[in-house]
Amino acid sequence: MDHTYAVIMAGGVGARFWPASRAKSPKQLLDLTGGGRTMIAATLDRLGPDIPPERVIVVTGAITVEAVARALPELPRENILAEPVGRNTAPCIGWAAVHVRQRDPEGVLAVMPSDHLVADVDTFKASVKTAVASARDGAMVTFGINPDRPETGFGYIEMGGLVKPGVREVERFVEKPDLATAKKYLEAGNFTWNSGMFFFSADRILDEIGRQMPDLKRGLDKIGEALAAGRETEVLQKVFPGLPATSIDYGVMEGATGILCVPVDFGWSDLGSWEAAYELSDKDDAANAIEGDVIPVGSTGCLVRAPAGKLVALVDVEDLVVVDTGDALLVCKRDRAQDVKKVVEALRSRDRKDLL
Amino acid sequence: MDHTYAVIMAGGVGARFWPASRAKSPKQLLDLTGGGRTMIAATLDRLGPDIPPERVIVVTGAITVEAVARALPELPRENILAEPVGRNTAPCIGWAAVHVRQRDPEGVLAVMPSDHLVADVDTFKASVKTAVASARDGAMVTFGINPDRPETGFGYIEMGGLVKPGVREVERFVEKPDLATAKKYLEAGNFTWNSGMFFFSADRILDEIGRQMPDLKRGLDKIGEALAAGRETEVLQKVFPGLPATSIDYGVMEGATGILCVPVDFGWSDLGSWEAAYELSDKDDAANAIEGDVIPVGSTGCLVRAPAGKLVALVDVEDLVVVDTGDALLVCKRDRAQDVKKVVEALRSRDRKDLL
Repeated sequence: MDHTYAVIMAGGVGARFWPASRAKSPKQLLDLTGGGRTMIAATLDRLGPDIPPERVIVVTGAITVEAVARALPELPRENILAEPVGRNTAPCIGWAAVHVRQRDPEGVLAVMPSDHLVADVDTFKASVKTAVASARDGAMVTFGINPDRPETGFGYIEMGGLVKPGVREVERFVEKPDLATAKKYLEAGNFTWNSGMFFFSADRILDEIGRQMPDLKRGLDKIGEALAAGRETEVLQKVFPGLPATSIDYGVMEGATGILCVPVDFGWSDLGSWEAAYELSDKDDAANAIEGDVIPVGSTGCLVRAPAGKLVALVDVEDLVVVDTGDALLVCKRDRAQDVKKVVEALRSRDRKDLL
Repeated sequence: MDHTYAVIMAGGVGARFWPASRAKSPKQLLDLTGGGRTMIAATLDRLGPDIPPERVIVVTGAITVEAVARALPELPRENILAEPVGRNTAPCIGWAAVHVRQRDPEGVLAVMPSDHLVADVDTFKASVKTAVASARDGAMVTFGINPDRPETGFGYIEMGGLVKPGVREVERFVEKPDLATAKKYLEAGNFTWNSGMFFFSADRILDEIGRQMPDLKRGLDKIGEALAAGRETEVLQKVFPGLPATSIDYGVMEGATGILCVPVDFGWSDLGSWEAAYELSDKDDAANAIEGDVIPVGSTGCLVRAPAGKLVALVDVEDLVVVDTGDALLVCKRDRAQDVKKVVEALRSRDRKDLL
């Protein structure tokens, strides 16, 4: 795996975890399930020792660079790439590929989000090895999560025939389905969830970008030339904001041919909401997932986060999310946790930057 | 009304309004319905001008003396009596009677709690006049609240024949009834709620205490002698803690004969819980009673109190009490607000004095 470089995408804001997540402390910089490590640190941890911090590149926003550096003290500082503005995943991955190719013309990228959970790390490592081997042979590879429910919140990958052990062809990428369609996918057995984890050589992805997104390719070339000339920062500020804000899925993967899929089963979760955090947290006898100084009276099924120095008392309530951060408090029905984004929208419309 | 002295009992801790109510800021020192005045200040206000602050005595605990003085700047400081320890209402009222008699041998006491609400102040004033007139004639008089529901949380007074306009005989005091009995009382029409508001001359109540509670009378006599000799504080510390901790209802009223009742109807509430505070607060279009910086998303029927500098967001919840005081947060089902006392009990058993 010596030529393998992990690219950890850490540009998200994670509005669904408000009030814990903020612009300066987004989801990936939080410990949402009580494991004791931030999500991005756990992401870095599970890559080693096959992919050591020296070969891990983190792409994040300018506002979070310092916090990322503090969360990942073992990561060389020059391995943190700060986007001047967020432009979705295609420019992010393309820019990382430029850096990898400059360091190692044979470099292979293992691209992954910074805010997902993996329960079974050994299986994860084995799956990465399988995917990287195909990527080194020139393929574009994606992880497909074996589904355990008819989830309507993810895109799916329809898989074709077996190429070699553990690797299948990709027939097509499909958008988030409705429930009836999701149930058909689950029954069919050859559909997996698109996890947003990709594997390809720097050469291959830059070639694909050149073929499908020539505007992006021209911008990346300018940045690459500046990088070689030692004046990347200056050019980045000019060029990056003009790059097309397109996802790698839509801009490259869906239009490419010969994509491969490694179907995986390593206890993955994208931890999409407080509800997911509740499901994955330790619970007490009354099914409450509690952190901090909390007195639950006759209350069940609640997720509670109390800040230091604060007592939270629950009386005869059930299935709530109660998150207190000192400056803000969320009280939310647990099964409506996706609606937390409505609070964030309300705060944006009121220009409450202090709470965003 | 020149010989009339109001005695405001302000010794309670109001545990049912935790976390807003604490030992040092009990219920009577809070503004729980958004009227802009503390409950004790509203109690003082509604006595004037018939009973001016010079003839109002407030009996409270040593720990709350300073807060009471701050809440009632118009009250002469010497009119605040500080109990060394709380000993229920019989010693409280007896002690106040000793003070009144020393100031005015013809003094009549109008005894009332500091933490009740009265909506119709003019009717209240008229009822006080009626009761005081009978008390001046030597009677022991109680206010009986005309019931509008079969409440099981109050004691009742069974009334007999009319003595004069607006004044009836008391047949008996009855304990808190079960629901079936409360329904019978409501139907019968001659039962009123025992409001804890009493009227009698200082002479009469001290005579009754002497007859029914001789131990208490001996203690009060010692305090009275010390008061006349200008060394009350010293004697109080020795004597008061040994007085019997008995209510005036149980110790005196229930055993007395010839008690009179003035049935009243002035929009009374004992504001017994956060639920009662909700009922009496102004609500928004979604029936939320909100104070502070609150964003309610898809939420109805909630009482919310946010402290300065804190945003509270509600998402898809209903009928909750959410009270944040900075150091403590209560989230409670509104119709179970009486269970808030269980939190206070838990805090006591954990010796969490910081939160009591």
